[in-house]
Amino acid sequence: MAGSRCRRSGDVRSQFVTSLSCLTFLSDFGLEDGFVAACHGVAVRIAPAARIIDITHLVPPGDVRRGAAVLAQTVPGMPPAVHVAVIDPRVGTARRAIAVQAGPGILVGPDNGLLSWAITALGGASRAVLLTNDALWSHPVSPTFHGRDIFMPVAAHLLTGTALADAGPMIDVADLVMLAPPTSRMHDGEAEGEVLSVDRFGNVQLSIAAPAAAELGISFGSSLLIRCNRRELVAPYLETFGSAAPGELVAFTDSAGLISLAVSNGNAAETLSLPPGARVRIAAALPA
Amino acid sequence: MAGSRCRRSGDVRSQFVTSLSCLTFLSDFGLEDGFVAACHGVAVRIAPAARIIDITHLVPPGDVRRGAAVLAQTVPGMPPAVHVAVIDPRVGTARRAIAVQAGPGILVGPDNGLLSWAITALGGASRAVLLTNDALWSHPVSPTFHGRDIFMPVAAHLLTGTALADAGPMIDVADLVMLAPPTSRMHDGEAEGEVLSVDRFGNVQLSIAAPAAAELGISFGSSLLIRCNRRELVAPYLETFGSAAPGELVAFTDSAGLISLAVSNGNAAETLSLPPGARVRIAAALPA
Amino acid sequence: MAGSRCRRSGDVRSQFVTSLSCLTFLSDFGLEDGFVAACHGVAVRIAPAARIIDITHLVPPGDVRRGAAVLAQTVPGMPPAVHVAVIDPRVGTARRAIAVQAGPGILVGPDNGLLSWAITALGGASRAVLLTNDALWSHPVSPTFHGRDIFMPVAAHLLTGTALADAGPMIDVADLVMLAPPTSRMHDGEAEGEVLSVDRFGNVQLSIAAPAAAELGISFGSSLLIRCNRRELVAPYLETFGSAAPGELVAFTDSAGLISLAVSNGNAAETLSLPPGARVRIAAALPA
Repeated sequence: MAGSRCRRSGDVRSQFVTSLSCLTFLSDFGLEDGFVAACHGVAVRIAPAARIIDITHLVPPGDVRRGAAVLAQTVPGMPPAVHVAVIDPRVGTARRAIAVQAGPGILVGPDNGLLSWAITALGGASRAVLLTNDALWSHPVSPTFHGRDIFMPVAAHLLTGTALADAGPMIDVADLVMLAPPTSRMHDGEAEGEVLSVDRFGNVQLSIAAPAAAELGISFGSSLLIRCNRRELVAPYLETFGSAAPGELVAFTDSAGLISLAVSNGNAAETLSLPPGARVRIAAALPA
Repeated sequence: MAGSRCRRSGDVRSQFVTSLSCLTFLSDFGLEDGFVAACHGVAVRIAPAARIIDITHLVPPGDVRRGAAVLAQTVPGMPPAVHVAVIDPRVGTARRAIAVQAGPGILVGPDNGLLSWAITALGGASRAVLLTNDALWSHPVSPTFHGRDIFMPVAAHLLTGTALADAGPMIDVADLVMLAPPTSRMHDGEAEGEVLSVDRFGNVQLSIAAPAAAELGISFGSSLLIRCNRRELVAPYLETFGSAAPGELVAFTDSAGLISLAVSNGNAAETLSLPPGARVRIAAALPA
Repeated sequence: MAGSRCRRSGDVRSQFVTSLSCLTFLSDFGLEDGFVAACHGVAVRIAPAARIIDITHLVPPGDVRRGAAVLAQTVPGMPPAVHVAVIDPRVGTARRAIAVQAGPGILVGPDNGLLSWAITALGGASRAVLLTNDALWSHPVSPTFHGRDIFMPVAAHLLTGTALADAGPMIDVADLVMLAPPTSRMHDGEAEGEVLSVDRFGNVQLSIAAPAAAELGISFGSSLLIRCNRRELVAPYLETFGSAAPGELVAFTDSAGLISLAVSNGNAAETLSLPPGARVRIAAALPA
């Protein structure tokens, strides 16, 4: 961010301490209250040059798994950044507050699994600290709003060049809470997975990566057999849903590299009754 | 944007290549996924000093006409900018990807009519290119997310001084897909139009511009006869709905210069059953 | 903000005129139209280095009291800023447009009470002006969109160093429209208040500040008797809802310092039928 460059030109020290100027932010805070803005305000006070990118604040309240999925699919495409994620139904209890270096980024949030898939997506944790240095916090600390009072101020300090080790003692990265990864397995010529997420368009993202299609002998233009909810459906496997006829069910590889189902000009999740977590199996369809 | 000025002071070349530092962004991506952030991330990687203004991401999925209306009403008030708009139900198919110079701005998006009314609002297209230079794209390109992988990176490159002609071959501006403009005509002492949009307040924006009122002999304080849904209604034509009594139906000139209907402290679109596209006729009401 | 620092280094005058570089923005404009972006565009044209923090734009249409509550709870944590707030059902009528200096901030908006609780939260009004200097406005001024054409351009000019007195004549701060503060009183060993707001999580924020609990002999870990809707409920008073069992009703001090009710992993407002404005009384529960 240019603002940051300007600052650095007058502050040689920080130029070498950090290469980060971008802060991303994901939460379940919603957009109707002032919670997100309160966090932005704290960040700007500490890191006036921060570029803040809001990932989303509309994760369903307390849905750590959904938050983990969106975070993991978004952070790899971000500039090197400090990523703050707060879905924290156990805020104020003994759950740990952590910062984790993973690849070019630092993830900051509660140690409840929310960060775990993003850690993997960024190449794995290289080191992690427990956030205990309250000199980096905003005081007084509300027991119910660590996003504003702990996670965001610590992240903003890290962005301005505070060393990770200054945020608290190192902890073993093997001890971080990891969510069980979405299940996906191959057997008997089938790939079995689950609905990982449903987007605004009703597109159903499966926990089955694109290479599984090739392994099953499915290529663009061929047909897919889909088993879900005790039904069997056949759909073409296409490069994009955009080439399907309105109302047609299609399978495609989505922008995260996962096999997904769409109804052209429709809503696949509703049509097929496939919420997140539902089981789906796919196989090559026999030629009719 | 000051950040941009800073950058330019150390980069004389780009100072003369472009005067743009602002990027606006409209889509139907919604706010519950990471799609909008993914596009911001791409833009920031390429154009770290970009000022990004989100117009809206809540256009109903695939509603090109609604997106075109919001875009056209918003871009004229923006600073000189690159405007990215992505409502793209045919993504990944043969529909063209374009960038269009119009007045002080450049519009980037699919050639499906989405940009057409904004082109007109900015003074008409002076030149247009087909986005074929994949050196400006993000790779790998997802067939279903050209917003992230083609439109946004090209826009960010244009913002940092890449010439329009570097994005691809010139195409004839006369060949751009144009949406039929909202209909509006005068006949027999009436103005006939359609509902162009309904805003959050339920205010009904007609495709009838304010001068039509004068032409019909309607001035502020006089009464309007409204014909819609086989009903006839009379409403005062006021400068603002704010001066009406609660529950009163009023006509006024809205902030885009179009005649609109409001119910004070109420919802005119619901009260009158007037969704976008509904036909409405207005005339001067005879004095009672 | 670094951008602002850059600008100032080449513009000594403004360095001394203002220390503000941050602009916050709250409205009931919603996010589906281009209204918010139109205001951002105006601000950026006038104050290219402005850091804009959106507080929320999802205040229910015309709900001045809700807007006042969110604004008052958010602005104290912001960097020194010009705060623009627009919930303005009487736009274009005789209601006054004002700018008010309060503590380190300047509040800009309609004089309908929207700003009043934030003025108090920032330490009270030190001076106020009527916005009459149309040289600072955007022309033509729409009678129905003063957010875009009056409030935002004036705020942006104030941010770039225009003196408050240049926006219009001084008015008596005692004449500003003040909303009646949320009621809260102690009597007969009870604190009586009202529901001030309900957040996205369904947490019910009462107009009873934390010290009232101490006064009633309630400390963390002890029980609270809650009277509302002709019911009597007992709940533990805890530091955080995070430590409660799923489904359990708890009282806690929220991040604004107010006593609040939550149902762990649930929605207290729905469970207890407590919308904003509902009356609630609390007292120490007798030991069982």
